[in-house]
Amino acid sequence: MASLEEKRHTLAHLLAAAVLERYPHAKATIGPAIDTGFYYDFDFAGGKAPGEVELAELQASMEELLPSWSDMSGTEVSEADARDRFKGNQYKLEILDGITAAGDTITLYTAGNFTDLCRGGHCDHPAHEIKAGTFELERIAGAYWRGDEKNPMLTRIYGLAFDTKEELEAYKEQREEAKKRDHKKLGKELDLFVFSELVGPGLPLWTPKGTLVRNLLDEFVWSLRASEGYEKVEIPHITKKDLYEVSGHWDKFKDELFRITTREDHEFAMKPMNCPHHTQIYARKQWSYRELPQRYSNTTACYRDEQSGELSGLSRVRAFSQDDAHVFCRTQDVKAEFLKVWDIIHAFYPAFGFELKVRLSTHDPEHPENYLGDAAVWEKSEAMLREIVEEKGVEAEAGVGEAAFYGPKLDFMAHDSIGRRWQVATIQLDMNQPERFDLFCINEQGEKERIVMIHAAIMGSIERFLSVLIEHTAGNFPVWLSPVQARVLPISGEKHGAYAAEVAKALKEAGIRADVDDANESLGKKIRNAKGEKIPYMLVVGDAEMEAGTLSVESRDEGKLDSMKTEDFVARIQEETARRT
Amino acid sequence: MASLEEKRHTLAHLLAAAVLERYPHAKATIGPAIDTGFYYDFDFAGGKAPGEVELAELQASMEELLPSWSDMSGTEVSEADARDRFKGNQYKLEILDGITAAGDTITLYTAGNFTDLCRGGHCDHPAHEIKAGTFELERIAGAYWRGDEKNPMLTRIYGLAFDTKEELEAYKEQREEAKKRDHKKLGKELDLFVFSELVGPGLPLWTPKGTLVRNLLDEFVWSLRASEGYEKVEIPHITKKDLYEVSGHWDKFKDELFRITTREDHEFAMKPMNCPHHTQIYARKQWSYRELPQRYSNTTACYRDEQSGELSGLSRVRAFSQDDAHVFCRTQDVKAEFLKVWDIIHAFYPAFGFELKVRLSTHDPEHPENYLGDAAVWEKSEAMLREIVEEKGVEAEAGVGEAAFYGPKLDFMAHDSIGRRWQVATIQLDMNQPERFDLFCINEQGEKERIVMIHAAIMGSIERFLSVLIEHTAGNFPVWLSPVQARVLPISGEKHGAYAAEVAKALKEAGIRADVDDANESLGKKIRNAKGEKIPYMLVVGDAEMEAGTLSVESRDEGKLDSMKTEDFVARIQEETARRT
Repeated sequence: MASLEEKRHTLAHLLAAAVLERYPHAKATIGPAIDTGFYYDFDFAGGKAPGEVELAELQASMEELLPSWSDMSGTEVSEADARDRFKGNQYKLEILDGITAAGDTITLYTAGNFTDLCRGGHCDHPAHEIKAGTFELERIAGAYWRGDEKNPMLTRIYGLAFDTKEELEAYKEQREEAKKRDHKKLGKELDLFVFSELVGPGLPLWTPKGTLVRNLLDEFVWSLRASEGYEKVEIPHITKKDLYEVSGHWDKFKDELFRITTREDHEFAMKPMNCPHHTQIYARKQWSYRELPQRYSNTTACYRDEQSGELSGLSRVRAFSQDDAHVFCRTQDVKAEFLKVWDIIHAFYPAFGFELKVRLSTHDPEHPENYLGDAAVWEKSEAMLREIVEEKGVEAEAGVGEAAFYGPKLDFMAHDSIGRRWQVATIQLDMNQPERFDLFCINEQGEKERIVMIHAAIMGSIERFLSVLIEHTAGNFPVWLSPVQARVLPISGEKHGAYAAEVAKALKEAGIRADVDDANESLGKKIRNAKGEKIPYMLVVGDAEMEAGTLSVESRDEGKLDSMKTEDFVARIQEETARRT
Repeated sequence: MASLEEKRHTLAHLLAAAVLERYPHAKATIGPAIDTGFYYDFDFAGGKAPGEVELAELQASMEELLPSWSDMSGTEVSEADARDRFKGNQYKLEILDGITAAGDTITLYTAGNFTDLCRGGHCDHPAHEIKAGTFELERIAGAYWRGDEKNPMLTRIYGLAFDTKEELEAYKEQREEAKKRDHKKLGKELDLFVFSELVGPGLPLWTPKGTLVRNLLDEFVWSLRASEGYEKVEIPHITKKDLYEVSGHWDKFKDELFRITTREDHEFAMKPMNCPHHTQIYARKQWSYRELPQRYSNTTACYRDEQSGELSGLSRVRAFSQDDAHVFCRTQDVKAEFLKVWDIIHAFYPAFGFELKVRLSTHDPEHPENYLGDAAVWEKSEAMLREIVEEKGVEAEAGVGEAAFYGPKLDFMAHDSIGRRWQVATIQLDMNQPERFDLFCINEQGEKERIVMIHAAIMGSIERFLSVLIEHTAGNFPVWLSPVQARVLPISGEKHGAYAAEVAKALKEAGIRADVDDANESLGKKIRNAKGEKIPYMLVVGDAEMEAGTLSVESRDEGKLDSMKTEDFVARIQEETARRT
């Protein structure tokens, strides 16, 4: 039976067949399988191009063609034959250039009446293996040939495809739900962050509410770290090139570094990571083994020169804040220090209702050129991580080739409320940078002993974590994290405004983030506004409440509650805040 | 009677006369008066040059020559005469080029047997006006001709000069004291910050202790701002050039901007100031007058491409953290908002024992090209600041030409414990950027109303403030700000170590930053170490203390105190922390 990937790849061919049938002037270019289905890029410059409305027709053509695709197979052809078949299609000819330059064989795959230049990886019997209702053309977008903006703009047609109709429907539902929760939309509605044309894409600016949320999250992480003996440090966001030449980042990240040439012609870079700077804080003095581990925590911005087309809301930005930490310790302390971070991660994510899975990310032994250091060091450090996972008794997914360039890591995956999976926290073991920066301590024998570094981020990038959290909660932040925790709604501003203000004052004095909606509007409108802002508690006050000295409490999550005295409401919200629920 | 500046300028000539007498091959270049005396730059390339040991001889020569300088006067000469007189001295000839190019007259000043090319500004009767013992040659340094590293390196001889011998002595004492308190030296001894060769000069890295101090200071400022209705915001450290083209910073700061060209060839810059970014947060929505003022507070780094030679410890850096704030308000709110900041400044500085003076910094009407906006706006905004100072009933020094390029300001000067004066906090009124960014609110009439911006920094740059604070306190931070507030010193680690640990644990649980010195060393050594770290309290515990359940308390500032119970010591230090003394 064909794999999902093979079905998706086959469907890309089927799409191309349907397109060329209806748009004979189109030039087919490339069409791979992707995470949710497939796409194919076409050049329609020679005539008219399909729009979104034509997708249904194309879908119908695909369904019509499919039964005739009983078999799909490849044949090897000569370069001359291939060039003849694709003459007039400069894209396919360019692909052929690449194949022949690499000395690879040229294969053509045929199903029904359609033949395409392809490396293979399809269904053998498409008509039999691909079920009706399991695929659907999705949308049309522009894409540069080879992803390069200097090349012609092509038309990309996307399709969804899954093994079963049910899985396709479930994905579409998830996507619909995700659209409603889109953090870019909610971020604006909840007034958390904003992008400015003048500042540029990928560089979010944080409003008072958004900054409050960021800081509360950061303080939560810090409270967990403080109890494990971490200390805060601070570093500049730029450095001389020299630091990254020693660390290896200059070479590894050269395309993504924001580089600066100073007026004195020195080369500087904005930091893409914090570890090299932190080594310089450690290296300020000679340490006795008795003073180790040194645990440095630092929430600070990192920078990547991302391409405009790859930027997206808070998910992919040019400047992001890492809640970074580095532990400088002896090899013998690695396990204990990893377990401390493990505990922090498992105190943090479940507080938001995320389920966690762990991946053991190791180096790719077939590409040693992607990594610092020699095989023996990698073997040793990967064995240590394996031991930790075993000790924890969890099933770790294998992530071969997913290691950092300086060492293996444990990556944590959070599953959100609509079934999506996100890579979040990370703990990394680094035996390479301590070598490059000559970091050591003086051991019991009075000798220099090479130390190791542990890199640990809990949220990772605060921006990206917030994008995940906003979509996971649909903006309904837990009480402790809500920018406004309670809003007092006087039924009549004139009659109940003074009482409302008095209540709000009492709440603020108790450390609760409360405000009053004293706009001259109906209670219904005020409640709708508060719900739109996802405020956890609405406190309605009118004649009855004034008289009894109480509040009518409506909870965002639980609906109407019994009326209660202000002090009882304070106790409730303080308790919820303390529990971080 | 001659002014101090005239005396200093005259002494520069006298130094040149003494140098040329002893080193006839020397070429005199320029010699101005400076803040503490004078200097003169010489080219000694034609023969031997004096070193520090020769300064005494030169000083003696100056004293010997002085009585013969009864009169000093200038004469106008022709270009030809001047060129003839200075032939062979390319520096003087280059100065002459400048004078003639500008069409200025050429004057020579003579006293005794010495004549120099000079614009004037001396004593008329040096022998009479300059008293014995009021000047002193100080040191020798290298300096490029015209300050340009492409030019030849000259030898600069510095001298001190004051009106009276007493003032000279007082200045030397202050300088000696300042040397002992040098923040670069104390910063290292107290382990607050460190510079790394790999990261580069002007980019301090902050240790755990230094970071703690920075954060405590920042939290102090924030606590004062929070009670005045400020909210925190956060911004990226880079921006597209476009933002600064609108704000005017691109033009104004172009030499000092760290610029970045992205891989897509866009022009970015690291921020030299935060105001333009903050305007973009304000501009995210339309504001009703009822929602104003919006007060944004943001401690964040700014960057300046300073020349290496100008960098110095924390005083002049390439990346510094500003405790910045911007208030967006209506013109009618300016006074009230200025007074709030005024109060914050006057709650902050006296807490450290600084005395404050205020300077009203206005634009220079003779150089309108240095400023944004027209004269009417400047007149209006300067009048508003004058009114505020008058309302406060203080004497403000006039700072003509000291305004920011976008508006006038109130600058606050702190006088430190050894009599030096530092420019610290600032409040600035800006009617120009709101115009350039089109910032407005909707007023009572439903019309767009132009708003104004107030810029306010309390510490200014945290780095620079810390350099001042370290030298002001000689590292003896107040208790609330000390990284370690109390150290427990067991007389014998073996016998009293457990009790010491118990005391330290109780202190930490009470929120006190305490540690134990359990090194195997004498009590005397431990006390000396604690004093070296300027720890406010040393708590000695031995047999007697263990038996009585007490502590022998030695205060850094008050010496030995009565022994006390742990809980009484906790109460004392908590009370001192709360009072911020």
